Amino acid sequence: MTAIRYDVTGIGNAIVDIIGRCDDAFLTKIDKTKGAMQLVEADEIARIYAMMGPAIEVSGGSAANTIAGVGSFGGRAGFIGKIADDEFGRIFSHDIRSQGVAFNAKPTTGGAPTSRSLILVTPDGERTMNTFLGISTEFESGGLDTELISASAIIYLEGYLFDRPQAKQAFREAVTIAKANNRKVALTLSDSFCVDRHRAEFLDLIRSGVDILFANEKEIASLYETTDFEMAANNVSRDAKLAVLTRSEKGSMVASGSDRIAIAPEPVANVVDTTGAGDLYAAGFLFGQSRGLSFEISGRLASIAAAEIISHIGARPLTPLGTLARSKALSI
Amino acid sequence: MTAIRYDVTGIGNAIVDIIGRCDDAFLTKIDKTKGAMQLVEADEIARIYAMMGPAIEVSGGSAANTIAGVGSFGGRAGFIGKIADDEFGRIFSHDIRSQGVAFNAKPTTGGAPTSRSLILVTPDGERTMNTFLGISTEFESGGLDTELISASAIIYLEGYLFDRPQAKQAFREAVTIAKANNRKVALTLSDSFCVDRHRAEFLDLIRSGVDILFANEKEIASLYETTDFEMAANNVSRDAKLAVLTRSEKGSMVASGSDRIAIAPEPVANVVDTTGAGDLYAAGFLFGQSRGLSFEISGRLASIAAAEIISHIGARPLTPLGTLARSKALSI
Repeated sequence: MTAIRYDVTGIGNAIVDIIGRCDDAFLTKIDKTKGAMQLVEADEIARIYAMMGPAIEVSGGSAANTIAGVGSFGGRAGFIGKIADDEFGRIFSHDIRSQGVAFNAKPTTGGAPTSRSLILVTPDGERTMNTFLGISTEFESGGLDTELISASAIIYLEGYLFDRPQAKQAFREAVTIAKANNRKVALTLSDSFCVDRHRAEFLDLIRSGVDILFANEKEIASLYETTDFEMAANNVSRDAKLAVLTRSEKGSMVASGSDRIAIAPEPVANVVDTTGAGDLYAAGFLFGQSRGLSFEISGRLASIAAAEIISHIGARPLTPLGTLARSKALSI
Repeated sequence: MTAIRYDVTGIGNAIVDIIGRCDDAFLTKIDKTKGAMQLVEADEIARIYAMMGPAIEVSGGSAANTIAGVGSFGGRAGFIGKIADDEFGRIFSHDIRSQGVAFNAKPTTGGAPTSRSLILVTPDGERTMNTFLGISTEFESGGLDTELISASAIIYLEGYLFDRPQAKQAFREAVTIAKANNRKVALTLSDSFCVDRHRAEFLDLIRSGVDILFANEKEIASLYETTDFEMAANNVSRDAKLAVLTRSEKGSMVASGSDRIAIAPEPVANVVDTTGAGDLYAAGFLFGQSRGLSFEISGRLASIAAAEIISHIGARPLTPLGTLARSKALSI
């Protein structure tokens, strides 16, 4: 059996975010649902980009943000995702590796470009995402780094991959490899609309082998088709061994069997951009769990990481999260 | 004679900044002078990039930042600089055009890539720049947009262009076109080391036709080889019709003949990244002058723009500067 050499390995889309500000009227004009992630083609990306204001480019991707966060806490982390041999691919590789993350993907030449997401941030800090998958549409079982998965205590999967059959299949194979090595499987539901599109398959996967499920209020409501949070929590605690439910400014809740542990949110003076809030929450929680810390402390680390990320533009930490946690007297 | 259709047109290197944080020890390790701009080759960019932490990409370039700032104030602005047909070229074009700036450069195919600057920001907010000029090394007289220069009330030149003979020549031709059309010429000294390398030619240009000169304390000290600020100010007021001297947290001074007008700095709660401070100062001052405002009000607009830019990462404004100025009861 492979020895554990990594705390967490993430599998997801390797994306560079193109982040700009807009008002609500702009979202209406381009006919986008505020707060959602929508897959778009290259021509639509070009159309929206031409209409939007100035932007910054920063590495992103849901599971990738989480893994960069685990690295920033000082965890041993790995990432699996596809990049092309282009400027955005080099940016993505550099940024994730510079957090100490193992990322062994060979850039693909001559095909589609590296994935990008146009992220529009409204004055309330909410983000609306338009993702062009590019080379990530070629993500399939062959791209799995079996060695990395086998050597990781936890594998972490982003629900966004469910939107494509080949990626979903790769996803299931990753779970099989992890389970064969007695590793834990964590999953984030990613987006309420994505859950709505693939509800039965998400439930099937959760019931068959997810050890830690991350979801926000909207996503868990979509999964169980109820707006009653308590009812959704009761449902999920029957289906998943451990569920971690985030509720924005209301904090979060860990549901483990009949136990319910409330986690207070970390205060944030000024919410600038909520991109990556859930991703970084997951980073803190997974890092805490990989260190054998309690649900309470793992939740505190999660809240600290989420608070850091929403206080600035972009979904990668600007302050090393390990330093930040220690500055709050947390011993990690 | 061409009619004035633009307030300010800038001529400079079209650069995308790659900005990351580092400590002072890192600068020592890579043997770089803190606060300076150094031209480097592609292999050195790659070497430093591989060693540095995660970064963000955002459009930059000294004169380009100034011009984006003029656009952000609501001014009619143009920019002249070279880009390649690549991802960074598209980012640069999008960001400057989305500020309403006229930028008509045709991307060059098959040659060097679009310019980039690795900017390392230390905990004190100081930035140290390593610029790979790429396609900008091909900037020469042929690249001048004569129509744009002729139609602009002010042309604004960055001193960085002095480091290359062909660019310097293009620069002089731009001045000739501007003067033939009775336009004003503004120049920024850009960097004390650049001034040191080209002192005699800078003095020659200033004496022969610069209407507005921008310099910081170090640059003006380098130009006149004195650390006595008052002496440097007296020297420059003999050589330039109007000199605007910036002194970081000590504010700035407008020297017009024997007149000396002190401009107070705008308070900044938290200096995050000083990249672009001088560029945005120039934006506010030039915008004010293009609107026929007083030196005092132009200086206030300059200080407001500089304060906005140093309060966040990157040298392009995150808040529309026109809105910001009006929120401070300035009527522009």
